[in-house]
Amino acid sequence: MIKVAIIGASGYTGAEAIKILMHHDKAELTYLTALPEECGPVDQTFGQLKGRCNMQIEPLDLDKLSELADVALCCLPHKVSMGFVPKLLGAGVKVIDFSADYRLKDTSVYESYYNVKHVDTENLSHAAFGLPELFRDKIKNARLVANPGCFPTGASLAMAPLLKEGLVDTDSIIVNAVTGISGAGRNPSLKFHYPNMNENLFAYGIGTHRHMPEIEQIASDVAGSPVNILFQPHAGPFDRGILSTVYCQPKGTLGADQLEKLFQDFYSDEPFVVIVDASPEVKDVAGTNYCHIFPTIVKDRVVVFSAIDNLIKGASGQAIQNMNIIFGIDETLGLL
Amino acid sequence: MIKVAIIGASGYTGAEAIKILMHHDKAELTYLTALPEECGPVDQTFGQLKGRCNMQIEPLDLDKLSELADVALCCLPHKVSMGFVPKLLGAGVKVIDFSADYRLKDTSVYESYYNVKHVDTENLSHAAFGLPELFRDKIKNARLVANPGCFPTGASLAMAPLLKEGLVDTDSIIVNAVTGISGAGRNPSLKFHYPNMNENLFAYGIGTHRHMPEIEQIASDVAGSPVNILFQPHAGPFDRGILSTVYCQPKGTLGADQLEKLFQDFYSDEPFVVIVDASPEVKDVAGTNYCHIFPTIVKDRVVVFSAIDNLIKGASGQAIQNMNIIFGIDETLGLL
Amino acid sequence: MIKVAIIGASGYTGAEAIKILMHHDKAELTYLTALPEECGPVDQTFGQLKGRCNMQIEPLDLDKLSELADVALCCLPHKVSMGFVPKLLGAGVKVIDFSADYRLKDTSVYESYYNVKHVDTENLSHAAFGLPELFRDKIKNARLVANPGCFPTGASLAMAPLLKEGLVDTDSIIVNAVTGISGAGRNPSLKFHYPNMNENLFAYGIGTHRHMPEIEQIASDVAGSPVNILFQPHAGPFDRGILSTVYCQPKGTLGADQLEKLFQDFYSDEPFVVIVDASPEVKDVAGTNYCHIFPTIVKDRVVVFSAIDNLIKGASGQAIQNMNIIFGIDETLGLL
Amino acid sequence: MIKVAIIGASGYTGAEAIKILMHHDKAELTYLTALPEECGPVDQTFGQLKGRCNMQIEPLDLDKLSELADVALCCLPHKVSMGFVPKLLGAGVKVIDFSADYRLKDTSVYESYYNVKHVDTENLSHAAFGLPELFRDKIKNARLVANPGCFPTGASLAMAPLLKEGLVDTDSIIVNAVTGISGAGRNPSLKFHYPNMNENLFAYGIGTHRHMPEIEQIASDVAGSPVNILFQPHAGPFDRGILSTVYCQPKGTLGADQLEKLFQDFYSDEPFVVIVDASPEVKDVAGTNYCHIFPTIVKDRVVVFSAIDNLIKGASGQAIQNMNIIFGIDETLGLL
Repeated sequence: MIKVAIIGASGYTGAEAIKILMHHDKAELTYLTALPEECGPVDQTFGQLKGRCNMQIEPLDLDKLSELADVALCCLPHKVSMGFVPKLLGAGVKVIDFSADYRLKDTSVYESYYNVKHVDTENLSHAAFGLPELFRDKIKNARLVANPGCFPTGASLAMAPLLKEGLVDTDSIIVNAVTGISGAGRNPSLKFHYPNMNENLFAYGIGTHRHMPEIEQIASDVAGSPVNILFQPHAGPFDRGILSTVYCQPKGTLGADQLEKLFQDFYSDEPFVVIVDASPEVKDVAGTNYCHIFPTIVKDRVVVFSAIDNLIKGASGQAIQNMNIIFGIDETLGLL
Repeated sequence: MIKVAIIGASGYTGAEAIKILMHHDKAELTYLTALPEECGPVDQTFGQLKGRCNMQIEPLDLDKLSELADVALCCLPHKVSMGFVPKLLGAGVKVIDFSADYRLKDTSVYESYYNVKHVDTENLSHAAFGLPELFRDKIKNARLVANPGCFPTGASLAMAPLLKEGLVDTDSIIVNAVTGISGAGRNPSLKFHYPNMNENLFAYGIGTHRHMPEIEQIASDVAGSPVNILFQPHAGPFDRGILSTVYCQPKGTLGADQLEKLFQDFYSDEPFVVIVDASPEVKDVAGTNYCHIFPTIVKDRVVVFSAIDNLIKGASGQAIQNMNIIFGIDETLGLL
Repeated sequence: MIKVAIIGASGYTGAEAIKILMHHDKAELTYLTALPEECGPVDQTFGQLKGRCNMQIEPLDLDKLSELADVALCCLPHKVSMGFVPKLLGAGVKVIDFSADYRLKDTSVYESYYNVKHVDTENLSHAAFGLPELFRDKIKNARLVANPGCFPTGASLAMAPLLKEGLVDTDSIIVNAVTGISGAGRNPSLKFHYPNMNENLFAYGIGTHRHMPEIEQIASDVAGSPVNILFQPHAGPFDRGILSTVYCQPKGTLGADQLEKLFQDFYSDEPFVVIVDASPEVKDVAGTNYCHIFPTIVKDRVVVFSAIDNLIKGASGQAIQNMNIIFGIDETLGLL
Repeated sequence: MIKVAIIGASGYTGAEAIKILMHHDKAELTYLTALPEECGPVDQTFGQLKGRCNMQIEPLDLDKLSELADVALCCLPHKVSMGFVPKLLGAGVKVIDFSADYRLKDTSVYESYYNVKHVDTENLSHAAFGLPELFRDKIKNARLVANPGCFPTGASLAMAPLLKEGLVDTDSIIVNAVTGISGAGRNPSLKFHYPNMNENLFAYGIGTHRHMPEIEQIASDVAGSPVNILFQPHAGPFDRGILSTVYCQPKGTLGADQLEKLFQDFYSDEPFVVIVDASPEVKDVAGTNYCHIFPTIVKDRVVVFSAIDNLIKGASGQAIQNMNIIFGIDETLGLL
């Protein structure tokens, strides 16, 4: 059994990872940590675990980590994570990091979007970007995986076949996305206070969202040349899921059938990507590690829709998928 | 025109009062106040007022209040309110107070439920309880009206005809209620953070809710003798409305027709109470000052359902109704 | 008083029109009609009218219409409406038609999108397109107004200043919109059955939505030359509101300040359009006739966000606005 | 492996059963049937199964059933089910029936609540009532299990310890419950059309709900004497879950601690019942087979709150739990 620790287990991604690992045949939870004020029985923090998990959340102790775990899922916030990851690696565990700290290879981009100096460029240099469908080979041998952001996961899977084959203009792509509110995390705020968010929908992060450079980095990697993307997120009144609507200008003529075949072929061996024949629905993927994609042609433009669960394929599910890859076990364990 | 000030205008009840007064033919908003940190253009606080109301929220100045207003809607929190009401009255304005501070006539009950000493018993002694359908005569001549709580409004209107006529046992009444989340106010909290409250429903204030003694006081006033009530509130995933389900033991035999006639007669002159012939629906009263009531017999017991909008009939609408009564104008102005 | 009939009063737009007219100082409801099986007390159909409106919905009688009304709000479905409008006009009333039947000037476009032959081209030829902010002059003298679709209203107000001034490329505009479910009408369906739609979000009408040619017609009228638009609607889990996100390619360099001034100037005299300084929120316009617009620049492209209530500014409110214009009274009556 | 058929697989309970069985170590789905018009790939009916389950829903063929299955989960509607169950049993499979047809032992009660003559009293006589926590012994040897209704499950688990010990008055119990809308099934209706149900809450089945006699039968069985219960259901705007609030009159003095111990002891060996120390929340049990119960004392009365997922512990999860019991395997398989 792979022994798994969760560092920063008191947030929504922690809860999802715990629930997935409770049903994983070859991995077991051994250690949960959080800030001292968030420690205690894990089922006090997450009522849904009552009667199902009697573990304690404890303050992080590196010796204990070293002894108890083979791998750490590090669910710490951006900026905080890069202060801890070197210590976790130093304790001899593999690390799958949920923050943005090891995602952006260009530290100047990181520093301008996150307003902080990067303090662990050493580990940044060898971190694998944890989107298995696109970068599985690099993940296999990684000690440190940067688990992708939720929006980049949904958007990139929708664009990858087109970019890989060079079929669309790389300077005019628009990604319009709507996310459920679990994506905002567990800390209360006026914006996401129930009577404000319920029956509401709005755009945010206009021109400034931190997932924009991440999406561009992935797209550029896949395309083999710089890709410029206008990414616009919106928040909608539901818990889970992201629907991405991607608009691209094809370079030549492209038919709907050709498009469907392109996507079917590209993802033919992927257990978690399903090409569907109408708009994906966020409710169909909620609670799962699946990504539903529908590519089509509208008025000579390519429009691709994708749906994922932001907390699973967009976070904890993908992290376990990465963990399975690193340890050489069936990639789908715990996730079907 | 009646000149109206709102003291503590930055909460949900303030916003509702502003919107009602924008459509009132004989009253006008003249002054909005709040704590210094909540001051500024009112449409910054409430986006729904953009382009519709260009007033400023200002720190309270008693001289200005005295000059600008005939009446103050005091939307301050419990415990804070009784520190301000004497000053407002001293400024020569009439006061309709939204807090609980002037509702409970027995200060020992107030003090045990609110954990604070009452500091304005003088004004408490002459405050009218602002439930017009039951206490209109006392409201007419009041300088200070204690606007009722939201739960007590819905529950009392459902019980009053039965209590007035002495038709039910007064020792075994149960009020089971479910409220929308605007009732929790505008301050964010983990409980009412969107991803926690959405798709959720739970009981709260079990055995301890502060509206329990208020409901009992009203019921006892109407019945003319002490009434003992078990009140159990729940919170549900919607913005507005309270559905109260009241269970009573009839003293003698009571038929459904007799019951309907009792309620129809009791409320025959009331503009805002409608006796309906099936379960009221909170969506039917949301955004209105109406109370829908359905009394019936189930298995020899009386079951009465009532629905109100917690922010309107349960707060700001009722306050304007009280204001209309005090100033001797048509009680329905601004509220139809 | 203007006497108003509502033809097809049993749907959501009928209910909204009724509620608005209950608060209109210079217009009064005199006649409500629907199909025989939908007739009866209007408060049986709309529980929210209980105690507030005791009118009956009756089968349409043209003589009665002629006698009782000055204007008819025709809320009949597409295709059905053009069979009735000639009769309504023949009865001597002015008509504001909510259907699409008199919106598209090019009958071949109408016929290809609605799969039916247009049977009233005579009245089509003189019908005014009822978007007051853009076509007020033509509305003033109209006997028949084609009330715009909900999506076209929100999208067109977001694009008009740019198109009027010729500032953006007219061949690459994308309108991405999300609507609440009241837009789907009152007939139950599996798609909008609560357990399917709740917690869900999906695209629909992909490449085929009937509002696409309508948006293009308005845009082309404003621009003075053909405009090609890719319009993609989505349905989200809320009752009311449409958020449109419009992506355009500017022809030259355009600054955010310049853009804001353009919109402020263009709409400076409009009572119902508010230029805001961040993403509009559908909850801020829900229940109102307002349109909130935020234009900005992201990565050298123009992105404009607009929010309306689909049933009010997108239907019944705009119809009353048109009615006010036709009858030469204050355009904002009943709508502030 | 236990081979499982689902008869009537096109509804919500079918979908839940399929998802549970996909993760069951000792059972496998072998046969899905429905009415001819609902046949086809199961992932067409349930989009959430796309890429996960490629089975077909087929018209029922008894020979095929006999060959393919050891047990049938019969998800047919009330009244229809009793026409099929004899045939299913005749095909040599065990049957877990989701309808009400085999729940009520007194056919006169059945016939008065369901308005139909019972046509299979023979099998009714030996059917076990499938609430494992209360009737496990009878289930063990059953060929036919009547899977309980959703409300009866939540309500009965909340009352059983009190009734078993004879601690409360059996003539004055009130069960007030609120259910999510998946409980209404998959057929669209005006009542549960999204724009009607969203932001709404109402009571229904007032005095007539078919689960009332079922709750009374269970309660009477547990108490050993007739129990009279006033059951009042409500529908609230969420997908899943039932919160039951049960009010009882204790026979003697009962303390909160004593009550907690009573419940802890009664359910000490039950894997799916958790005694919690505050109001249960429907979101905590949604998607699980757990029942959270909080018993307490308010004003000398016993109030017990329970929460379950209506589709899992209230239907498909409980059915699998019953299946596990019948086949003598670990009762929790597929359900933790």
